[in-house]
Amino acid sequence: MSDALQWGGRFSEPPDPALLQFGSSLEEDLVLAPFDLQCSAAHVTALEEGGILAHADASALRGALQTVATEIQTGAFAAFARATHAEDVHGAIDARVRELARAAGESLHAGRSRNDQVATTLLLYCADRAAKGKRLSAQIAQTLVSQAREHLAAETVLAATTHWQPAQPVLLAFWLSAAAEPFLREARRFGNVRTDAMRSCPLGSGAVAGSSLPLGREAAARELGFTMPARNAMDAIGNRDAALDAAHAFVRSLANASRICEELILWCTPAFGYARLSDAASTGSSLMPQKRNPDPFELVRGTASSLNGHYAGAVGSICGVALSYHRDLQVTKAAIIAICERGYAALDAFARALSHLQFDGTRMSAQAGAGYTVATDVADALIATGIPAREAHARVGAEVLASERSGNLPAWPDARASVRGKATIGSTNPLMVAQTLESLQAEIAQVRE
Amino acid sequence: MSDALQWGGRFSEPPDPALLQFGSSLEEDLVLAPFDLQCSAAHVTALEEGGILAHADASALRGALQTVATEIQTGAFAAFARATHAEDVHGAIDARVRELARAAGESLHAGRSRNDQVATTLLLYCADRAAKGKRLSAQIAQTLVSQAREHLAAETVLAATTHWQPAQPVLLAFWLSAAAEPFLREARRFGNVRTDAMRSCPLGSGAVAGSSLPLGREAAARELGFTMPARNAMDAIGNRDAALDAAHAFVRSLANASRICEELILWCTPAFGYARLSDAASTGSSLMPQKRNPDPFELVRGTASSLNGHYAGAVGSICGVALSYHRDLQVTKAAIIAICERGYAALDAFARALSHLQFDGTRMSAQAGAGYTVATDVADALIATGIPAREAHARVGAEVLASERSGNLPAWPDARASVRGKATIGSTNPLMVAQTLESLQAEIAQVRE
Amino acid sequence: MSDALQWGGRFSEPPDPALLQFGSSLEEDLVLAPFDLQCSAAHVTALEEGGILAHADASALRGALQTVATEIQTGAFAAFARATHAEDVHGAIDARVRELARAAGESLHAGRSRNDQVATTLLLYCADRAAKGKRLSAQIAQTLVSQAREHLAAETVLAATTHWQPAQPVLLAFWLSAAAEPFLREARRFGNVRTDAMRSCPLGSGAVAGSSLPLGREAAARELGFTMPARNAMDAIGNRDAALDAAHAFVRSLANASRICEELILWCTPAFGYARLSDAASTGSSLMPQKRNPDPFELVRGTASSLNGHYAGAVGSICGVALSYHRDLQVTKAAIIAICERGYAALDAFARALSHLQFDGTRMSAQAGAGYTVATDVADALIATGIPAREAHARVGAEVLASERSGNLPAWPDARASVRGKATIGSTNPLMVAQTLESLQAEIAQVRE
Amino acid sequence: MSDALQWGGRFSEPPDPALLQFGSSLEEDLVLAPFDLQCSAAHVTALEEGGILAHADASALRGALQTVATEIQTGAFAAFARATHAEDVHGAIDARVRELARAAGESLHAGRSRNDQVATTLLLYCADRAAKGKRLSAQIAQTLVSQAREHLAAETVLAATTHWQPAQPVLLAFWLSAAAEPFLREARRFGNVRTDAMRSCPLGSGAVAGSSLPLGREAAARELGFTMPARNAMDAIGNRDAALDAAHAFVRSLANASRICEELILWCTPAFGYARLSDAASTGSSLMPQKRNPDPFELVRGTASSLNGHYAGAVGSICGVALSYHRDLQVTKAAIIAICERGYAALDAFARALSHLQFDGTRMSAQAGAGYTVATDVADALIATGIPAREAHARVGAEVLASERSGNLPAWPDARASVRGKATIGSTNPLMVAQTLESLQAEIAQVRE
Repeated sequence: MSDALQWGGRFSEPPDPALLQFGSSLEEDLVLAPFDLQCSAAHVTALEEGGILAHADASALRGALQTVATEIQTGAFAAFARATHAEDVHGAIDARVRELARAAGESLHAGRSRNDQVATTLLLYCADRAAKGKRLSAQIAQTLVSQAREHLAAETVLAATTHWQPAQPVLLAFWLSAAAEPFLREARRFGNVRTDAMRSCPLGSGAVAGSSLPLGREAAARELGFTMPARNAMDAIGNRDAALDAAHAFVRSLANASRICEELILWCTPAFGYARLSDAASTGSSLMPQKRNPDPFELVRGTASSLNGHYAGAVGSICGVALSYHRDLQVTKAAIIAICERGYAALDAFARALSHLQFDGTRMSAQAGAGYTVATDVADALIATGIPAREAHARVGAEVLASERSGNLPAWPDARASVRGKATIGSTNPLMVAQTLESLQAEIAQVRE
Repeated sequence: MSDALQWGGRFSEPPDPALLQFGSSLEEDLVLAPFDLQCSAAHVTALEEGGILAHADASALRGALQTVATEIQTGAFAAFARATHAEDVHGAIDARVRELARAAGESLHAGRSRNDQVATTLLLYCADRAAKGKRLSAQIAQTLVSQAREHLAAETVLAATTHWQPAQPVLLAFWLSAAAEPFLREARRFGNVRTDAMRSCPLGSGAVAGSSLPLGREAAARELGFTMPARNAMDAIGNRDAALDAAHAFVRSLANASRICEELILWCTPAFGYARLSDAASTGSSLMPQKRNPDPFELVRGTASSLNGHYAGAVGSICGVALSYHRDLQVTKAAIIAICERGYAALDAFARALSHLQFDGTRMSAQAGAGYTVATDVADALIATGIPAREAHARVGAEVLASERSGNLPAWPDARASVRGKATIGSTNPLMVAQTLESLQAEIAQVRE
Repeated sequence: MSDALQWGGRFSEPPDPALLQFGSSLEEDLVLAPFDLQCSAAHVTALEEGGILAHADASALRGALQTVATEIQTGAFAAFARATHAEDVHGAIDARVRELARAAGESLHAGRSRNDQVATTLLLYCADRAAKGKRLSAQIAQTLVSQAREHLAAETVLAATTHWQPAQPVLLAFWLSAAAEPFLREARRFGNVRTDAMRSCPLGSGAVAGSSLPLGREAAARELGFTMPARNAMDAIGNRDAALDAAHAFVRSLANASRICEELILWCTPAFGYARLSDAASTGSSLMPQKRNPDPFELVRGTASSLNGHYAGAVGSICGVALSYHRDLQVTKAAIIAICERGYAALDAFARALSHLQFDGTRMSAQAGAGYTVATDVADALIATGIPAREAHARVGAEVLASERSGNLPAWPDARASVRGKATIGSTNPLMVAQTLESLQAEIAQVRE
Repeated sequence: MSDALQWGGRFSEPPDPALLQFGSSLEEDLVLAPFDLQCSAAHVTALEEGGILAHADASALRGALQTVATEIQTGAFAAFARATHAEDVHGAIDARVRELARAAGESLHAGRSRNDQVATTLLLYCADRAAKGKRLSAQIAQTLVSQAREHLAAETVLAATTHWQPAQPVLLAFWLSAAAEPFLREARRFGNVRTDAMRSCPLGSGAVAGSSLPLGREAAARELGFTMPARNAMDAIGNRDAALDAAHAFVRSLANASRICEELILWCTPAFGYARLSDAASTGSSLMPQKRNPDPFELVRGTASSLNGHYAGAVGSICGVALSYHRDLQVTKAAIIAICERGYAALDAFARALSHLQFDGTRMSAQAGAGYTVATDVADALIATGIPAREAHARVGAEVLASERSGNLPAWPDARASVRGKATIGSTNPLMVAQTLESLQAEIAQVRE
């Protein structure tokens, strides 16, 4: 038996090395190392509180964990872990602690199973990533709101499209505030995910049934920042709900980002010409010397789709798996980590790319009235005089058809007049947009507290 | 132009009937009819409040909507809708209202777009389904907790498995409470989904930019039960966040249900023999006369996987779609409705099947000690005497190996002793399980309020 | 027991009606009715061949099946099936045959299980849909090739984009032939799917083990058009490989269609102005009188994403399901049917919409040189004089930058010269495009045979 | 500009390092290095054939590529590539070749774009992995067939289940041959995928339009083993069909493997006790000393679900992406590679675990008649005497019910008699199973040629 394995007494054959390597999650879960250290330190507390570990041994273990923390930062731990052929980061830390703390090290795993250890560590990791996702989402919302304020002052107008066809004139500030809204929602979602992850602490649940050793579970949960120890050991070690929710939050944030990406990719084309991504954020071609491509937005769009499927795979890997721990959940964990890591990186790249973007307000405003975008206002004016909506719609539609055929443009109000004429809360009327931005700003500030 | 179409003035050719039919969402969105009526009534309020609609016309419209409500219940409306070849349920209701309210009917759509109408109706529907999902989840949790209480009294023990291999003895009550926990979480998730759906009312957002007619948006939002009118029209008509969350809540509830299903399907086999699903809930074979199959659990398990993918498809259908409305969102809507409808039906079937299940406590308890399930207790007892955990584990492992080879079973405590010996909060110790059930019960009651 | 149920002798309680309804697949599998009739007729042959059924009874059954065939066409059968509350279409047909053929009807199911019946019927259905998918894919390829030929004659040029940024001038005919290629591949895929589906006939496999009655399996397989009877009954009734492949073929065809849709949706905007979808294929807005939206392309794009997820759900529903039949496979079947039906409809709509599309060659050609699209040709000319590629690229890149800063356009060749200067097989050079179209045309003809 | 970048002349700002790192695919595509070398060598041939590259330069480049090949094997190249901060493996190889071949190195990329280079390299990789997947699938089928032959000789019987409930007695050899069938299908699928991948060579397609340099595309395609050069450059660089098919083949193979895993995981429990996975392939618990878990089967099952979703993500990432290259396709590529790598590893682990499995034929056979598994034979015997099938079914069902109530078992034939009594092709009758195995064996041999 390899010394890094945490079992073996009842086995009469050594493991098949190829299967051991296939089963290893080390490359996927090395990122969990700092969170396992927190979890292990809290377990030392639980053991000490329960009188299972003498103070001196507890101190030795804490010292060893501290050393590993340093080795993680220097990269020395990753090298050690790979060399041990440990099954996972938890086994590798256990092995290193046993080297460092000698006799005391043999007791670190008392009353603990990898089941509760993995569940706890994963929650700590997900809570951390959710907190980072929240900060980033709020920052993106803030960037968009700040840009909106600038363009509200300039009263930049834009032919808003639906189905990509010219629809109605709106303020660029209105579009930017529409782009900000989902990120405020996502920031809230990430916040809720974090709270849920830190509600109930699995540590001390053992393999499935709890422990016959009097572990100080409450102290451990408190030390880690959880609201309380999990009240059912089997559910605690077997469910992946909060961790999947963290992954889902990244998926949904990216789905929302991908919509903005699509629009900006097109706005950066000469055909639209509404925006320019700086050279620093663009990419060239190895063949075509003239190229400047808005790659970050494309990569974020692609990542959204890819992680969306990956999340379905993660949920799929728990479907039909009986309660308690089954090794399938290792695959679930790997997928969750992959989604959180790549999702965060993509969200961060999106935020950076946004800061490299310049809008061409002049060109936008010049196009805002093209495509009969004020037709609805003309129809609404008829309705205001008492003409039924259906008839007003038909009349203006006929006017558009006639104009297209004759080539004569009707004498209709311009785009800015259309925008200023809007009368409803939440509309693109500059006064309403100003109100919306204020309210958005207040909520962003609240979320960022 | 078909009279049921809500546009056409600028078109010089009639629509290709095959494409019109392909584009129709009527079959998918007929289920939204009652929610469109609410939405339409609120729009009448908004028009009246804004002075756009005279009181008499408003009354005529309200009367017509009332009539349609009756026709929905009798099935007459569905027949009408199909006969009109309307593009969707909204067009069909509009057509029927125009028949019923004559002149007034021509004004129902004033200041309204299908974009804000669809968004609002979908939120009302999702809020309703989320409320139903919440009730059902809470009821499932309650059923499991009630069963747990019964079996706690009987102290039924069970060989809990991990990896499907005998792990440790636990109380059946403990297993049942583990099964209940996710449904309490899902009930909370459904509750949050409902709240989120009813936060911000799209009605009055028009197609994308708001309206130049002075619609009474606040009154309409209030009438529908929303917290407030949406503050950005473009976001309001283009985002599907809350609706997707409703679908996701069903997917995740089913994923959790599928895990219990897997376990119960196996428990119902003669090999395990732990449970029996009544004849009323079982299904036979058209060929094999002896068959009694636990089909509801299999269907729920399969539905979980299927809807999980379907949800990925729904999210996929918004990825890379620019802000505002694009027709892709019709596909998103159809997928959301399909997931909510089938998800609710599956959750309901799961609840029903649970009520048809009987556990065989005698057989369970008889098997609870087999497979050396108390080995961990034996090792823990060594640890309590000061032997390091790693050594204790190795010693007991070797004892198991020796016993398997010799065929002599070690003189170890029995399963009930193991269960009673558990010392931690959240463990399977009967006293702890009693506490957990109390706490669960209190939270279920709170959720059901 | 309901008379429509095909089991019940060993049951002491009637089924819970709510669970029975949840378990019914009738609404999903009514579309299989004609294929079940074929399958049932072949089973009559197998029974007769095996001497299990007298000739008179066989004739009575064949007559009854013929009657049901007529009733399917008139719609009478669907009404009957719904009224019987049958579990599925197979039970409904069995019930109707028993009504029609009286005593003989009681023997139709001899030696047959719904397991082999469902598997066979589903394969017949999938083979049929694959054949239709193949025809449609080949037709789409043909439409695109025919359009390409037209535009090759006109030498319409286009600024091909990569990353949506102007890349290099190409012929519109070249773009159209690029759009045709995937549909030729998909036509081949559908063809292979059909062949695979018709390889091995499950009929006569019984529930899982084959039959002790001497069924004439070879005659039945031959009658249905299969290559041979399945050689392992358990695999035959439990695998869904060929049926899933049919669904997958639709998913992948739509994914390829969605890419063209995206491009055409943008080409139809005023910003690009390269194409116009006719009024007959466009859709208006209920609010904005001027709107003409390219809805079919958007719906196809959305359907591609949705069905992609749905397929993952179908595969997910077989993952982790033990060999042989489990009720989860009913969900798999429903998903497969939904994907084939909706996938075929979307592909058909795509084909129709293409036929409603007009390209604006003048506008395209006018824009083909903008955005320095001939820069690569200029660099290649340098390389041809012996300048290393890397240096040539850098020089021309610097020239572009200088031109952008100064506003002076370099005196470079025009788009048509660029296109004509291409020297490689498969390039956009008109001579090469002509060759490609010839080769494509020949392969399409071959596929359509 | 970093020297590793293959563009930059028209850029006035250096790239944002964070965005450059986000956009790098180096970690994902290092595995493509050997295939890029092949591709690059073939491009040298194309350049030389076209007279663009002097023979001496061509030799220098070939020598440099040879050196890189060695460096890949020693790991030196990976270290170099990471140190250069190249955007991808292609840029890293280009940079290393320029170091090694000096002046000649500046010409390697003449007439080539990363677009055709990436497309070609990915196809070579996928063809290689498909070939390996084919070999492995055929080997798995062979293992199962060989085991089947052994157990056919012993006439081991088994209570086959449907819905996990006892269904009918079958031979273990029959079950094993049912398990082998899908892998023969998958081997064929992999073979087709490989052929499709090697049909049409993208190299020489340039960025999108072909090249104005007279590249020897046919020689290059031949050197790489493709059937012919791609006939449309835009399709060649933009489609990912064959590569996605390779990923799909792994997904479907794993889905089929997961079904067998589920069954074996349960067969390894004491409740069934049909099989034992050796110590070498099992895993223990860090807490429970007695544990032996069949982890490889669980990991394969989980991997099937996870990769299924991941594949949907890969397809999702091409949906709605216009023709030609967009950076989203980098995400597609990463997903394809991840699926092929992890899929192959899982299939290999499955093959290994199967070889560590022992069946307990005695226990299996002893249980084969339990659960009234011969009831169908009894009913069939009635049918053979002329009793209608429906009545026979009802009678035997009633007998089962009566037996369950009275506790008296009916005097029915035993399991082996049932098996021997089967009369149809493809049934579990030992003679039929022997035929099936012969036919399977012949096809496996054919596939392995």
